Amino acid sequence: MGSQQQQPELAPVGWVESPLRDLAAAPKQGDEGAPNAWLVLDESLLAALNGLAVGDRLLVLTWLDRARRDVLEVFPRGDRSRSPLGVFATRSPDRPNPIGLHRAEVLAIEGNRVQVSELEAVDGTPVLDLKPVLSEDVGER
Amino acid sequence: MGSQQQQPELAPVGWVESPLRDLAAAPKQGDEGAPNAWLVLDESLLAALNGLAVGDRLLVLTWLDRARRDVLEVFPRGDRSRSPLGVFATRSPDRPNPIGLHRAEVLAIEGNRVQVSELEAVDGTPVLDLKPVLSEDVGER
Repeated sequence: MGSQQQQPELAPVGWVESPLRDLAAAPKQGDEGAPNAWLVLDESLLAALNGLAVGDRLLVLTWLDRARRDVLEVFPRGDRSRSPLGVFATRSPDRPNPIGLHRAEVLAIEGNRVQVSELEAVDGTPVLDLKPVLSEDVGER
Repeated sequence: MGSQQQQPELAPVGWVESPLRDLAAAPKQGDEGAPNAWLVLDESLLAALNGLAVGDRLLVLTWLDRARRDVLEVFPRGDRSRSPLGVFATRSPDRPNPIGLHRAEVLAIEGNRVQVSELEAVDGTPVLDLKPVLSEDVGER
């Protein structure tokens, strides 16, 4: 694929600071009662937050470091009475590249710390990226 | 962060096969005329596609291997008459972890090949993950 290609090696940009410490207690999706959390970014990346504002809607990408990467099929929501589904047809954290995708709203910004609403990621989860939500993401054309 | 933590090393699950070969010709977003493309997945991951169907709405995660990872601020859409913004407030491909997030619809599935609509990623781009779109992603509660 050409000499320009980089190795896809991730460098976390920060981590999640959350009261959520127990994986078993984590809700399956953020709209089921996840707590607010802080994203603590590396101080060297402060300029990358320029323009971000309270009220902005974000997609927070995380590295789900406790997930299993060798799982290809899962029982949706852990229900073994249902047929297993391929992980690419589900939002299971277990998948070849366990990248978490969380929709959240910016509640506060304090230097390199960004508070976001209802984040279903446990304390210490590495943060990979923040992206603003686009109208395209939500199906508006 | 505990002994359970894995190194966040990505393993691409496949690559993009697209008529789009020129970065300069790539549209900024998929709704501006990107072509349909095929996601060619590693054959060992076939089971991970189980349950995926034509018509499904997907989020395709890619590794934007030609992006610059040391850029923290950009001029939105390349317009230098505007103020620079931090990359976390934009969807610039240049960012510390250049993970592309593309919304697309499944048009066809042929074995380990998945055709998707309007993907703004050049031919050969590594694919990291496929996720179904959830109502939460589009703001439905």
